[in-house]
Amino acid sequence: MKVSQALISVSDKRGVLEFAQALHAQGVKLLSTGGTASMLRQAGLPVTDVSEHTGFPEMLDGRVKTLHPKVHGGILARRDLPEHMETIAAHDISRIDLVVVNLYPFAQTVTEPDCTLEDAIENIDIGGPTMVRAAAKNHGNEAGGVGIVTDPEDYAPIVAELRANDGALSYKTRFALAVKAFTHTARYDSAISNHLTALTLGEGGEVSKQAYPERFQVAFDKVQDLRYGENPHQSAAFYREPVTPEGSIAAYVQLQGKELSYNNIADADAAWECVKAFDRDSHTAACVIVKHANPCGVAIAESPEAAYRKAFSTDPTSAFGGIIAFNCEVDRAAAEAVAAQFLEVLIAPSYNADALAVLAAKQNVRVLTCALGKPAGALDYKRVGGGLLVQSADEARIQIADLKVVTKRAPTDDELRNLLFAWRVAKYVKSNAIVYCRDGMTVGVGAGQMSRVDSARIAAIKAENAGLTVRGSVVASDAFFPFRDGLDVLAQAGATAVIQPGGSMRDAEVIAAADEQGIAMVVTGFRHFRH
Amino acid sequence: MKVSQALISVSDKRGVLEFAQALHAQGVKLLSTGGTASMLRQAGLPVTDVSEHTGFPEMLDGRVKTLHPKVHGGILARRDLPEHMETIAAHDISRIDLVVVNLYPFAQTVTEPDCTLEDAIENIDIGGPTMVRAAAKNHGNEAGGVGIVTDPEDYAPIVAELRANDGALSYKTRFALAVKAFTHTARYDSAISNHLTALTLGEGGEVSKQAYPERFQVAFDKVQDLRYGENPHQSAAFYREPVTPEGSIAAYVQLQGKELSYNNIADADAAWECVKAFDRDSHTAACVIVKHANPCGVAIAESPEAAYRKAFSTDPTSAFGGIIAFNCEVDRAAAEAVAAQFLEVLIAPSYNADALAVLAAKQNVRVLTCALGKPAGALDYKRVGGGLLVQSADEARIQIADLKVVTKRAPTDDELRNLLFAWRVAKYVKSNAIVYCRDGMTVGVGAGQMSRVDSARIAAIKAENAGLTVRGSVVASDAFFPFRDGLDVLAQAGATAVIQPGGSMRDAEVIAAADEQGIAMVVTGFRHFRH
Repeated sequence: MKVSQALISVSDKRGVLEFAQALHAQGVKLLSTGGTASMLRQAGLPVTDVSEHTGFPEMLDGRVKTLHPKVHGGILARRDLPEHMETIAAHDISRIDLVVVNLYPFAQTVTEPDCTLEDAIENIDIGGPTMVRAAAKNHGNEAGGVGIVTDPEDYAPIVAELRANDGALSYKTRFALAVKAFTHTARYDSAISNHLTALTLGEGGEVSKQAYPERFQVAFDKVQDLRYGENPHQSAAFYREPVTPEGSIAAYVQLQGKELSYNNIADADAAWECVKAFDRDSHTAACVIVKHANPCGVAIAESPEAAYRKAFSTDPTSAFGGIIAFNCEVDRAAAEAVAAQFLEVLIAPSYNADALAVLAAKQNVRVLTCALGKPAGALDYKRVGGGLLVQSADEARIQIADLKVVTKRAPTDDELRNLLFAWRVAKYVKSNAIVYCRDGMTVGVGAGQMSRVDSARIAAIKAENAGLTVRGSVVASDAFFPFRDGLDVLAQAGATAVIQPGGSMRDAEVIAAADEQGIAMVVTGFRHFRH
Repeated sequence: MKVSQALISVSDKRGVLEFAQALHAQGVKLLSTGGTASMLRQAGLPVTDVSEHTGFPEMLDGRVKTLHPKVHGGILARRDLPEHMETIAAHDISRIDLVVVNLYPFAQTVTEPDCTLEDAIENIDIGGPTMVRAAAKNHGNEAGGVGIVTDPEDYAPIVAELRANDGALSYKTRFALAVKAFTHTARYDSAISNHLTALTLGEGGEVSKQAYPERFQVAFDKVQDLRYGENPHQSAAFYREPVTPEGSIAAYVQLQGKELSYNNIADADAAWECVKAFDRDSHTAACVIVKHANPCGVAIAESPEAAYRKAFSTDPTSAFGGIIAFNCEVDRAAAEAVAAQFLEVLIAPSYNADALAVLAAKQNVRVLTCALGKPAGALDYKRVGGGLLVQSADEARIQIADLKVVTKRAPTDDELRNLLFAWRVAKYVKSNAIVYCRDGMTVGVGAGQMSRVDSARIAAIKAENAGLTVRGSVVASDAFFPFRDGLDVLAQAGATAVIQPGGSMRDAEVIAAADEQGIAMVVTGFRHFRH
């Protein structure tokens, strides 16, 4: 069935003129309203205004313009039912076969600083979503139906199809457009609900806004189905935010290798977020190796190869089958070093041609690029039975100048640099985290323990197993020491300086223990729990 | 402004007759459609049909009935603008001050086994959501506006307010109703999008369904704002699913104690899911103590007190400040035992009066009840940068009869019982997990390690630190042994039997190592990674 008439009324006007011209060239009659109508008319297109079409005068500032049987009968009449076609003919209602409507992004309206509640409400579109939904419902079947176009990206393929298909749209296309349209209206009303359910109206009508709405709707777009989940008996898929922040793992590009698994993505995220924590002002390269969601080796150095070798030496056993991330371009030397171990995933902002040639010989290795740059202000989610914990991201960050020395001995400059390095790492190690570092590298990582003192012991034992010593190293603790026992373990292991949040009821006891043992201690004032 | 006229058209008919009667008694004129109109009319209420009201005949099987300026002008005209009021008067349009519409749950339609795509599409309501959205938009201000009622729970308070307020609804009420209405339509279209974007239309028009939709909208309802997130510099809130599964932590009831924190809820979830894993056919009570998201002590016994004492003895250091869960009623003896340690949260299906009296003396302890019973089929979410990993829940579960013996020596009955117990625990310990058990209790928990062999070492060291021995114990490993080294560590520590998934390339080597050392080994065929 040829598209005989289109109704066009868009907020996002990109490409709409060209689209309307192409429709006109196909002999499609054009209905339109408001700004869209003026724009098309100025370009010389014959356009019928919806008010003229309905014969009902424009009123109430345009609030009910399209909410009329002449419009909705023309959209909703089933093309496959002769009685529907006869009915609309009898009422002088002409078919509207194409509805071109998109909605002003509500979320954007309300982020404008001077947007009042009244503005927000006034911006809510009633007629638009109704046409979108009506057209989507009546996308029809093989016998015919309505096309609903909500995305300017679809204009070109639609024109191509109309031209190739004698002015008609296939069922398959109409179905795909309808599906997209319901997503459009779902997200539109979700944004309205997220905004409005965060507001509270005071007794005097004053509006206050909570950080977290009472009703929370979140939307994601599928990136890919996964072969399975955390375990092979679980099914899984990977989704990204509709506007995916550059620099996040969800914006990855895969250059080679096997399909990413669920655990690959989770670990790649941990590695990527950790490696991005290292500014490149004090060194050339940072490398992070992650296994089972924890960094098992982190280092900074003057070349990516050197950073990798240092990171790997922390815990070669765990690094087997790990995920490796760099915060700089990977060159031939780094690629050769990395390719000599068994790894699952490699991530970096870029690779030079030599490096890619080296990696190409290991076709199973998944090689990803991600842009550097921090995804800003995103919410973190943690799933629990029947619910969801939602929190702001842990964006706390400290510089050397912010650290407070609490012991008699202040750290040396070298200790200070390594303390800050250890603190950056500890943020990405599962709690309780104890991280021994020296010379810009981890030498022992105590992760995921139920007691801090165990974490301190484990990190030292692991260092020893890797043929390293923690003697002369510095240590970061992701949270305060509840008792002096943890600090004593670090001192006995030979650590010389410690960074920790402070704030324990027994801080005085812990600081005294440090002083007793000649340890320099700095506090950050905040902790980095990560579970 | 008195409510002069109401339009009523509901899918969920609970209480609507009584509501309409109350409105009629207040002198409100009633407009209605279809099944709702018949129902009210049969009860003797004077009802005007919408077709009569608009003067436009019912057509297209009712598809455009309410999409008419007589309806939408009556809803959308601003009560505070005299020109709007004059305009509708001039067009003989009467105000509709109350819209009572709710939508048939689309998600329910499509779960019916014989629901075709055509049925699903036919079920999508166009007129209803339009009235809901129009009325919500025009909820107005102090000068007046429209009330939009989408939830039968609101009928009684609205009637009360109309009676108390001379037949008018306050701005505050209209605003609250509008907010609720946009959530209603957001979730309606979200369900449609979730369903339709999972479908694929084949060349012959045949429909296939993917497990995970291309566009995914998820909705949550806020339970409470939290004082802060995982760390004090993060803000947070707790949400639950709109239909919260009984038996999930999100359905908790707090009997006493301080406000729950973010980490409390996360840990309580881990403890609760773990304790529910123990059927009560083989014993009376199970107790789980969680710290930093990992079980640090788990036991089954003939009384909750005995289970607690065994669980506590696994790792008294970590149990300090822990979260404790029982799968049975807590009695006085258990309450007294628990109250003797510092704990953050206690969870159980119930408490007897004596237990509550004991706990009342520790007013800071958060005491929760949760129903036993497994939340079924929920999806698990893991947040990564810019995206979300979605997977089906890890519901794999094994019984003794399913285990396969792979070593020369088969486990004894006692070993078998303890192996199954250890396997149940290992599922809830962060990977890599190694869990030593004996006599229905954990004796060493190796959690969150980047290498399995470290986990094996750590668990034994922790047992020793707690004054326990792992000699004569059995061990669960949440995933296979990639090499024999991990198994050797267990054997050297004195374990006598092992449960593990099997499936390593080096299974033969690992089994040979077990045989060499007289260890009995059973395999499950599936792993329990949990990160």
